[in-house]
Amino acid sequence: MSQMTLVIGNQNYSSWSLRPWLAMKQFGLQFNTIRIPLYSPESSSKIRQYSPSGKVPVLLHDTQTVWDSLAICEYLAETFPHLYWWPEDKNTRAYARCISAEMHSGFQNLRQNMPMNCRAKYPGKGLALGVQQDIDRITSIWRESRQMFGNDGDMLFGKFTIADAFFAPVVLRFVIYDVQLDAVSRDYVAAILALPTMQEWIKAAETETEVMSQYEF
Amino acid sequence: MSQMTLVIGNQNYSSWSLRPWLAMKQFGLQFNTIRIPLYSPESSSKIRQYSPSGKVPVLLHDTQTVWDSLAICEYLAETFPHLYWWPEDKNTRAYARCISAEMHSGFQNLRQNMPMNCRAKYPGKGLALGVQQDIDRITSIWRESRQMFGNDGDMLFGKFTIADAFFAPVVLRFVIYDVQLDAVSRDYVAAILALPTMQEWIKAAETETEVMSQYEF
Repeated sequence: MSQMTLVIGNQNYSSWSLRPWLAMKQFGLQFNTIRIPLYSPESSSKIRQYSPSGKVPVLLHDTQTVWDSLAICEYLAETFPHLYWWPEDKNTRAYARCISAEMHSGFQNLRQNMPMNCRAKYPGKGLALGVQQDIDRITSIWRESRQMFGNDGDMLFGKFTIADAFFAPVVLRFVIYDVQLDAVSRDYVAAILALPTMQEWIKAAETETEVMSQYEF
Repeated sequence: MSQMTLVIGNQNYSSWSLRPWLAMKQFGLQFNTIRIPLYSPESSSKIRQYSPSGKVPVLLHDTQTVWDSLAICEYLAETFPHLYWWPEDKNTRAYARCISAEMHSGFQNLRQNMPMNCRAKYPGKGLALGVQQDIDRITSIWRESRQMFGNDGDMLFGKFTIADAFFAPVVLRFVIYDVQLDAVSRDYVAAILALPTMQEWIKAAETETEVMSQYEF
């Protein structure tokens, strides 16, 4: 029987950890989690027990170690090919990979100035230079995906895909910082928040007690 | 007959553009390039003619637009599945995706402090805080890949894969800044530099006349 463990950081703060966790939950995979609170004196050595990059998330699957949120999702898509990780149509799948990769490497201004902090509410904060530009690009991606591919449900490509997992932390940021959004984006935020898996993540975050001052205003 | 065009930035400076360009050349694909010099007054509007993210590289393939270096490579791997984009073994392929994704989203200190500038030589410069840590992690990836998977050639997985395309700009940075390396990493740098495709890129960079002062010391 194959065993899967996902090593994650604090659920309150670790946006990278949320991505594969959410995808795995949405696709009904059975897995254990190991939670390692970040930025404590022992964090680094604990993470390095599992992760060659020294970062979370890491997936442990039998003897295989897979790190990086996107590589984990691609690995799972190959390992469980009967599930709907990416859209079926090749060109739509390419589009889904483009926007996921854009999220994976980009939006530094948003990341730095609006850190994820599930327990908090910071309306109006974080709008530093370049952040609105990041927000505009993200909501333009959402509108275009929903319009072109979203007929069959309320996710970016109708049904839930890896792309939704990649944008889920941004959804939380937009709620935390009360970012002004267009109607399509508001509906998408509501749809992601309504996922029972997202509620499960947020509830877990609320029970955590660690406080990382660099992510608090 | 299917038509491919890759939109790239300055070959002297655009490390992101080098990645898919190198992979496409290595796999013998026929394609046109459109070169758009970056950070000039018209750059942004010119890039937006092709790229929804406002960034290069962008692949135009018949009616399909694919942006982001990693998504382009995954798209090509699906479109030309007979070529050796990723290692054949599933677990080795997962490893190759992990290190490519790590390069895609990480190593910010190295990127910022040792920008790619093919024409230049800046020995000893750029070693700001955190840069040596990035260098150590990258060379540790190279040593591990070469040792575990590199028997069948002088690339990270023996034969050339997308992972080599992802690390090729780092090879150039290590040469430009004359970074001190272990023997395995020196051999790998030499092997990448010796690729006729890399030489073609560097020659093209040397003929360019634009100077971007933020990438010059």
